[in-house]
Amino acid sequence: MKTRDFPDGTILLKAEPGDEILSAATAEIQRRGIFAGGFTGVGACSEAEIGFWDGDKREYLKETIRGPLEILALTGNVAKVEDGKAFLHAHAVLGDRKLNTRGGHLFRAVAEPTCEIILRPLAGELERRMEECGLRLWKL
Amino acid sequence: MKTRDFPDGTILLKAEPGDEILSAATAEIQRRGIFAGGFTGVGACSEAEIGFWDGDKREYLKETIRGPLEILALTGNVAKVEDGKAFLHAHAVLGDRKLNTRGGHLFRAVAEPTCEIILRPLAGELERRMEECGLRLWKL
Amino acid sequence: MKTRDFPDGTILLKAEPGDEILSAATAEIQRRGIFAGGFTGVGACSEAEIGFWDGDKREYLKETIRGPLEILALTGNVAKVEDGKAFLHAHAVLGDRKLNTRGGHLFRAVAEPTCEIILRPLAGELERRMEECGLRLWKL
Repeated sequence: MKTRDFPDGTILLKAEPGDEILSAATAEIQRRGIFAGGFTGVGACSEAEIGFWDGDKREYLKETIRGPLEILALTGNVAKVEDGKAFLHAHAVLGDRKLNTRGGHLFRAVAEPTCEIILRPLAGELERRMEECGLRLWKL
Repeated sequence: MKTRDFPDGTILLKAEPGDEILSAATAEIQRRGIFAGGFTGVGACSEAEIGFWDGDKREYLKETIRGPLEILALTGNVAKVEDGKAFLHAHAVLGDRKLNTRGGHLFRAVAEPTCEIILRPLAGELERRMEECGLRLWKL
Repeated sequence: MKTRDFPDGTILLKAEPGDEILSAATAEIQRRGIFAGGFTGVGACSEAEIGFWDGDKREYLKETIRGPLEILALTGNVAKVEDGKAFLHAHAVLGDRKLNTRGGHLFRAVAEPTCEIILRPLAGELERRMEECGLRLWKL
């Protein structure tokens, strides 16, 4: 993953072929000590693991979708979780060669050939804390 | 709905379980006197009412989708409408437990358990004015 | 296409009925000498041409979808390409009257009645350069 910083604080993150987008972006964001922010992105991937939160079972129903897939809308935010790590919460809408779409909570996506993420960091720390529903939600 | 302000003016809005996301966000934005801005968000909801503009009938075809649903991409903007109120124009892409997607103009969505919105207010007022098509569009 | 500038540098772009959204926005951005930035948008269109990158064939599989269609999520960025021109890379998720969705790399969309784009320019130039995969990717 390559990055570029702009004077207003915005950071561009470019996934290289084969990069797992979320872990590569998280590592970069963690390294910079960013614990709050928002991002959007577009790109394409060779496969992606997405999920749906089953509130009754208190678990994600996950599926790995084999690509290639266009990443049509990557939307999410950066926070700090209980172990002091940066955590990216991302949802993705994906498109296949028929231009049909599926989407979910993004767990994993392998860039092919790239994903272009625009991150706008925020000052300070945005914490997530485990709530009764079984998810770590924003602590505002 | 809870909020947090950041030094650069960005506001995070967190919908609590059962909050109708659009009306709760609108009330908060109205209270703050914000009449221009852009937002993105992700979350989940127990149900959502979305619509499609039928330009011939000059009305929205609306459907209430029972959830649970992931809010995969919430995209929109804030303006001021003719009655002097803040108005949120939001489109949503929603995902079901099969990871299939539907979407439309968002009228209503009940957070379950949350929706995480990043609002970037803009200085001044962005007005909407009724146009011939029957919709209130940006007056730039 | 109409525009409005805000004090923080954000630019709103409003497509008028019949405007081809991408070319009209590109012309405006080129005219202003903007060669880096990110944008999101919502709107509706009478038709749209979207595509899927076939990495084996090294070409886009394109389809023109007749509308009307809601533009549910327009996400993308601005860069400079080798001929010194501003280039908008945009992905779109589109919704039909059944609230079903399709999406892809956006080549063309005719606004009906509008598309509301929020552009956040970045200082300097973000270049794209042809890579082995056959696409012009970010040069960071």
